[in-house]
Amino acid sequence: MDGYIGWPLAQHQLSIGNEVCGIDNFSRRAHVAEMGSTSALPISPMEFRLDDLQRHYDSKISFFEADLLDKNFTNYILKKFSPDAIVHLAEQPAAPYSMIDQEHAVYTHQNNVIGTLNLLYAMKNFAPKAHLIKLGTMGEYGYDPGLDIPEGFFEIEYRGKKAKIPYPKMAGSWYHWTKVHDSNNIMFACKIWGLKSTDIMQGIVYGTRLKNLPKKIYQHTRFDFDESFGTVINRYCAQAVIGHKLTPYGKGMQTRGFLALEDSIQCISLLLENPPEDENYRVVNQFDEQYNVTELAQKVKRIGDKKDLDVEIEPIENPRIEKEVHYYNADHNKLKELGFKPTRHIDQEIEIMLDDLIPYKQRIVKHQEAIVKKIKWTDFIKQSDFSKTEIPISLIR
Amino acid sequence: MDGYIGWPLAQHQLSIGNEVCGIDNFSRRAHVAEMGSTSALPISPMEFRLDDLQRHYDSKISFFEADLLDKNFTNYILKKFSPDAIVHLAEQPAAPYSMIDQEHAVYTHQNNVIGTLNLLYAMKNFAPKAHLIKLGTMGEYGYDPGLDIPEGFFEIEYRGKKAKIPYPKMAGSWYHWTKVHDSNNIMFACKIWGLKSTDIMQGIVYGTRLKNLPKKIYQHTRFDFDESFGTVINRYCAQAVIGHKLTPYGKGMQTRGFLALEDSIQCISLLLENPPEDENYRVVNQFDEQYNVTELAQKVKRIGDKKDLDVEIEPIENPRIEKEVHYYNADHNKLKELGFKPTRHIDQEIEIMLDDLIPYKQRIVKHQEAIVKKIKWTDFIKQSDFSKTEIPISLIR
Repeated sequence: MDGYIGWPLAQHQLSIGNEVCGIDNFSRRAHVAEMGSTSALPISPMEFRLDDLQRHYDSKISFFEADLLDKNFTNYILKKFSPDAIVHLAEQPAAPYSMIDQEHAVYTHQNNVIGTLNLLYAMKNFAPKAHLIKLGTMGEYGYDPGLDIPEGFFEIEYRGKKAKIPYPKMAGSWYHWTKVHDSNNIMFACKIWGLKSTDIMQGIVYGTRLKNLPKKIYQHTRFDFDESFGTVINRYCAQAVIGHKLTPYGKGMQTRGFLALEDSIQCISLLLENPPEDENYRVVNQFDEQYNVTELAQKVKRIGDKKDLDVEIEPIENPRIEKEVHYYNADHNKLKELGFKPTRHIDQEIEIMLDDLIPYKQRIVKHQEAIVKKIKWTDFIKQSDFSKTEIPISLIR
Repeated sequence: MDGYIGWPLAQHQLSIGNEVCGIDNFSRRAHVAEMGSTSALPISPMEFRLDDLQRHYDSKISFFEADLLDKNFTNYILKKFSPDAIVHLAEQPAAPYSMIDQEHAVYTHQNNVIGTLNLLYAMKNFAPKAHLIKLGTMGEYGYDPGLDIPEGFFEIEYRGKKAKIPYPKMAGSWYHWTKVHDSNNIMFACKIWGLKSTDIMQGIVYGTRLKNLPKKIYQHTRFDFDESFGTVINRYCAQAVIGHKLTPYGKGMQTRGFLALEDSIQCISLLLENPPEDENYRVVNQFDEQYNVTELAQKVKRIGDKKDLDVEIEPIENPRIEKEVHYYNADHNKLKELGFKPTRHIDQEIEIMLDDLIPYKQRIVKHQEAIVKKIKWTDFIKQSDFSKTEIPISLIR
């Protein structure tokens, strides 16, 4: 509940009268510190955040500092609360972080795959009727095949036979693959145990606050701009504020789906109110508009220049292995059918983001080293690092 | 190297003059003991197996008792040996074992997914030119969609666009899903790091020995017949030998691909001699014939009856969640193009299996409780088991 989406989602759910039980292990704060960075917008320790919530909302809130890897806790909490719904935002969410080295790749698998598996078992045992809303990513589909992207499943013909099958996933980082692994595991658990889940393939979310909550500092959610946890739009805004050139990767034609934070919370809340009916495992693509990362840089430049930020754009070498020019056309109809109406436009939201960031310029300046890419998809470890490792083997012969 | 396929493969490779370095953590012996069973054919401790190998073969053999989860070891061994090829048979290979409970599901994910990830990193760092042969399973594809099954990838048309994409996987147990996760991770590592791998989608392998090796007891490989590690054909043969009814699951129309052990070793050796050339990540479907599990029971009955075993067949309730009647037509051309010629027929091989097992009937009788299904795909844990667990949580409020 301490993360970028969890915090505003908890507030929104409290504001509409729902009881909320939050869980976090504060790994996001620790990982961003590990990247030599911090949230550009200051955020309070959870104790103070909770005090604020209790002052401003009548609904019941509880919070546990805990980890999904702790299966005893996971079983305990589902048994104790019997939730109607579980919003699972507890994954390591950064592609570059997962690509740093072997330890980070293994950590991302452990945290995401084993954490989700523990949650599925806890649901099976103690909350089999609950609706699991799991945050996946549009990046699970990948960008390689050049086909239209359906919402999870598509009907195809092969050698004269037709079938509706899962759209194959072609993710682009260990992080993205762990989300694919989780999607597969959730689909399987729904099939064999009759659990209900909505798997959200979400685009890149941007924005610093919800507009309908009281205008106090605590309403801000965290804003990361480091190369791992800062999305492309966050990094651009942070760069614009401190006079750093915006740095699209490579050819800059990578197209992605985008969604305002306000609208992401609207979508998740709609899904909470509308669990799947005709199927146990539902996939929705959750984004509003599609842009490529150069168009996005041009938007930030145009809006920044109006604020006299004097923004320049300078593409840098792409640290990722990815198609830089590709066809992209993804369906996103299911949420609209449930009543989703986009309320924010990216231009308005970029303006608010820049306005919110400018007072905290010095926090970004202080951590600006963390913005630009050092993590490469192909870095090899130094042999000298290896020679230091101990070799605890038991040799038979 | 201590497992069902690893042991004969090592012998075959030594017999044709290749240097072999084996690794095993002996988990298979431990897990079969955990199931209350043992190999029907006695197998020696590794020390004696190695003595035998050194007496009978001129090629160099070395062995390490170690675990792929130990990344220091994995890095060390690839650096030390610079292998031309790596045959990765080190996964927990039993669907029912992975479905026992949460601990076994998590263990299977840890062992298979993290072990393979460690191996991929070790290859990247210390053996980037090696050819990884990874044992997957035909079960990764699943049996649900009723389409022909290609070898890994298929070309389809969707909304007027054509693309060659991975055939989507629809596995049927946590074990099968971990192999899907590994296939995905290997495909990704091949893409970003240029590693070379052949991912074998293998059918069910049967048989007790290779025919061209010296006829001594050590040439037998292990033969499991418990409900987890014994395949359907092994369980039938064990049941026939001790006068137990053969127990197909449910309707008994589940169709699978089958392959003799001798031919599995031939296929793996062909792949070792022919690393992929035009692609980094190659998928082959490795099986010879297709039967449903009732046809298979009838074969064992017919051959057993000729030996006066007086075999009966009695289907039991299916403990698995799976389609019991389904279309099944899977390609298996790539290995034939490399020169694979099936040398064994399942009827001959069942006869040899029964002959090999009859002298060890008492070992099967002693462990017969382990043959028939107790592990269900849908078992819920007993609430009383849960109340015993400690709840180590740190509660903020």
